[in-house]
Amino acid sequence: MLSTMQDVPLTVSRILRHGSTVHAGSHVTTWTGDGAPERRGFDEIGARAAQLAHALRDELGVVGDQRIATLMWNNGVHMEAYLAIPAMGAVLHTLNLRLPAEQLTWIVGHAADRVIIVDATLVPLLAPLLPRLDSVEHVVVAGSGDRSPLAGARARVHDYEELIAGRPTDFDWPEIDEREAAALCYTSGTTGDPKGAVYSHRSIYLHSMHVNSAEAFALSPRETALPVVPMFHVNAWGLPHAAFMAGTSLIMPDRFLQPAPLAEMIETLRPTMAAAVPTIWQGLLAELDAKRRDTGSLRAVVIGGSACPPALMKAFEDRHAIRVIHAWGMTETSPLGSVSHPPHGLSEEEEWTYRLSQGRFPASVEARLAGPGGGFLPWDGESAGELEVRGPWIAGAYYGGAGEGPLRPEDKFSEDGWLRTGDVGTITPDGYLTLTDRAKDVIKSGGEWISSVELENHLMGHPEIAEAAVVAVPDEKWGERPLAAVVLRDGNAPDYAAFKAYLAERIARWQLPERWAVIPAVPKTSVGKFDKKVLRRQYAQGELDVVEL
Amino acid sequence: MLSTMQDVPLTVSRILRHGSTVHAGSHVTTWTGDGAPERRGFDEIGARAAQLAHALRDELGVVGDQRIATLMWNNGVHMEAYLAIPAMGAVLHTLNLRLPAEQLTWIVGHAADRVIIVDATLVPLLAPLLPRLDSVEHVVVAGSGDRSPLAGARARVHDYEELIAGRPTDFDWPEIDEREAAALCYTSGTTGDPKGAVYSHRSIYLHSMHVNSAEAFALSPRETALPVVPMFHVNAWGLPHAAFMAGTSLIMPDRFLQPAPLAEMIETLRPTMAAAVPTIWQGLLAELDAKRRDTGSLRAVVIGGSACPPALMKAFEDRHAIRVIHAWGMTETSPLGSVSHPPHGLSEEEEWTYRLSQGRFPASVEARLAGPGGGFLPWDGESAGELEVRGPWIAGAYYGGAGEGPLRPEDKFSEDGWLRTGDVGTITPDGYLTLTDRAKDVIKSGGEWISSVELENHLMGHPEIAEAAVVAVPDEKWGERPLAAVVLRDGNAPDYAAFKAYLAERIARWQLPERWAVIPAVPKTSVGKFDKKVLRRQYAQGELDVVEL
Repeated sequence: MLSTMQDVPLTVSRILRHGSTVHAGSHVTTWTGDGAPERRGFDEIGARAAQLAHALRDELGVVGDQRIATLMWNNGVHMEAYLAIPAMGAVLHTLNLRLPAEQLTWIVGHAADRVIIVDATLVPLLAPLLPRLDSVEHVVVAGSGDRSPLAGARARVHDYEELIAGRPTDFDWPEIDEREAAALCYTSGTTGDPKGAVYSHRSIYLHSMHVNSAEAFALSPRETALPVVPMFHVNAWGLPHAAFMAGTSLIMPDRFLQPAPLAEMIETLRPTMAAAVPTIWQGLLAELDAKRRDTGSLRAVVIGGSACPPALMKAFEDRHAIRVIHAWGMTETSPLGSVSHPPHGLSEEEEWTYRLSQGRFPASVEARLAGPGGGFLPWDGESAGELEVRGPWIAGAYYGGAGEGPLRPEDKFSEDGWLRTGDVGTITPDGYLTLTDRAKDVIKSGGEWISSVELENHLMGHPEIAEAAVVAVPDEKWGERPLAAVVLRDGNAPDYAAFKAYLAERIARWQLPERWAVIPAVPKTSVGKFDKKVLRRQYAQGELDVVEL
Repeated sequence: MLSTMQDVPLTVSRILRHGSTVHAGSHVTTWTGDGAPERRGFDEIGARAAQLAHALRDELGVVGDQRIATLMWNNGVHMEAYLAIPAMGAVLHTLNLRLPAEQLTWIVGHAADRVIIVDATLVPLLAPLLPRLDSVEHVVVAGSGDRSPLAGARARVHDYEELIAGRPTDFDWPEIDEREAAALCYTSGTTGDPKGAVYSHRSIYLHSMHVNSAEAFALSPRETALPVVPMFHVNAWGLPHAAFMAGTSLIMPDRFLQPAPLAEMIETLRPTMAAAVPTIWQGLLAELDAKRRDTGSLRAVVIGGSACPPALMKAFEDRHAIRVIHAWGMTETSPLGSVSHPPHGLSEEEEWTYRLSQGRFPASVEARLAGPGGGFLPWDGESAGELEVRGPWIAGAYYGGAGEGPLRPEDKFSEDGWLRTGDVGTITPDGYLTLTDRAKDVIKSGGEWISSVELENHLMGHPEIAEAAVVAVPDEKWGERPLAAVVLRDGNAPDYAAFKAYLAERIARWQLPERWAVIPAVPKTSVGKFDKKVLRRQYAQGELDVVEL
């Protein structure tokens, strides 16, 4: 029995039409660094999005689902691209301007981007790559800056404002199947080629509705949002589309991501919520501690991207009365997975336990924990497994490239189509997720998992140990066993037996490492994370002085 | 280019699974009138819903999309039916227990209901109808009460608790196409046969997400909702499904809808929000005025179903510090259309202008105003047209009956598939709807519309006029013209010229009625609304003493 409801697709054009009419008076304000932020109403953003669509179609010949890339900061023009490109049926491909040149080149080629819209300030980054970007026929430069590096480019170069000027301010947006591609974002995978998640109109629409729900960020016309998280990073966590849907005014920081201008934006433009990764908030905290600013407009800031240090959350609340909300997600999850609103009616201490967790899933994100021995684990707050998720805004595959089918690597997707997140953690009976490890960092010992992070945290609590990294090494009997590599505080000989005894008081006997080594420092990646690949290789090549006991 | 997102349907079973796991600890509390409300956790509701599904399938042989009717108050068992019936693939048909016996009989036959779940207290209502309910094979009685009226019924009679007892507490809910029927609700149309809106899994899921958004009712685990609006009336405005999705605990009033028990529920069970039609709130206001109760838990009450008198909204705020939120919708709109949250930063007076309006539409409900002369009107806050809406939870047709195609009456649906709401009003440039008339009550005079409600309100402001009704009567030159029928305060002869002069100071000249009559009282419907059909008939049959001037 079919329903009698209208069959209306969930599309970005619906968000665009709605925001630019019902919420015509909401606005997008871009920080310019010169004391005069640029402010445009949602109606004007909508009109300019229509002009952009006309320019892309009529002047640049964009048809069908061609990929239009953006290499841009968070600003009003990027917002126009966010709306116009999917709404006209093309695919918005946001390029991560922090990627190495090699990866950027590979990604543009894999996506077969036909047009790149670039901020003038990023022309120096793009120009050297252009000769190798064979698919790119047009470069559209937004804003002012030196364009001379583009001289001689094979691609045609346009000025954004000149390109859209004088074109009609409305567009007959096509009715698109909601499962069609709307946007494309590549993960900056540490191993192998980058992989592209292709968001659909449906996934963006549903994710936007979720962002605006009370259990996520509750955007509404009464809010003003400051997405510090880049629009080239999982669609700025979905905030631009969600805000346009809800009528929430946006403050765009453009390239001014340093603590001082961020503090000034908050004081003068008065956002009610903001979102960024921990590093940004760490910098802002120091700035606010050093120079008192009026941050009274901020009801909440969202921290995600990696686990947030509890001290940072507490410092914001205690010293600046800013509530921090912890959230978990990834490129493959659009990205909102879970959000850590605590239950109500708890003591402050109990509340913190919940708030430091990764939070609860919404109805649209089903979760399960895959155990080390196969099968799924109970939600008892103790059984640790790899988190797998399923839902309408969760990836079920990666983009295979033009003319190719989707990629479904086995380590990323289960046989029944769930996303394997690569994160290991527990879920409480009331649905709160706590992540403890990356799956690649747990030690699979005889059908059980040993958390390297837990061992490291205990070891670093020992007074003689400055740093510690625990990695899995092959073991004939158990499959894998932990190797503890420690950095000592002074030059004394290591007392491994004492370290082991110290651990034995804190963890189960079968988890105790048998293999130990002293290292001068823990190898780190460019962003400061422990680089365990290096340690595993050093072990394999016999470069570590390993003691067994 | 297809997206790489998972293709996961939006279904009631997803809401059920989510609510009963992630929000296992939220609860449904049913008022029993004996001082001991019955409370069940969402986990228990989910387990009992599974038992009900097993019973319906294994014991009663329910297959496919058969219709299972409920004739029930708002209570925990009704909640179980709300979840189990759609989740198993059957269709939940909520019967309006206030309908005349004739209509109820017709509706059950038209829907071909195979099973009716009935509250024991409503057995006396159902029993006399049963002999004519040919499709009904099973009656399931919930709760305690006299079942003797069912003795001798052709349908098999079951006890709800006995039926579900001992069955498995989980169910392998089928994966259903989200466009399949989930629930069925008939309008109590004043003319012609009742018409059934068939909600889909998709429409219920999306509507639930919207209810939980900040721009609607912002349900979350931190809230407790009291739906006074019946579950047989447009799914209690979507609150049960939305609350189960959000983890919002529910307080169910069962049959205790009188002011005193409602006040006691609010005081003792402490809901944070409640929803009902104006009549209920009017009664509650009188109760609260007469006997002070602790209503401090209520952050907001939602009023819809018909326009809310401003005095009522203000009385709740001034005398009891309860904020009233105005909302508009109808059976065909699931029902949430618009909600009247005012913009922020306004003076109190300006804010009231917005709050008394019907509010703003969400992205999922597109609106347009069809003008009297064809074409669509601007959103200028002045041009009045018939409201038409489009969206994924808006009806595009009615149920035609088993084996029949959908019904699409021309006066209800536009050629391009929009719902004609039958409501006439204006929309401001910032998207706020104000309804002024029912389309059938406006006077179509020479391609312009005259608002009968506006004329009536002005006339009733005249000191000698107690009541006034204005109806359209045929006119050779203009098509239609207004007839003003007035009820005088005393027995004096009517001074029509003075009445007309009084109106002329307040409305445009071309809107002034030429035809006048005195009547002893305005004819009213059973629910107290002006019954203009009667006046039009009296005019047509020459029963009114009409003066022309």
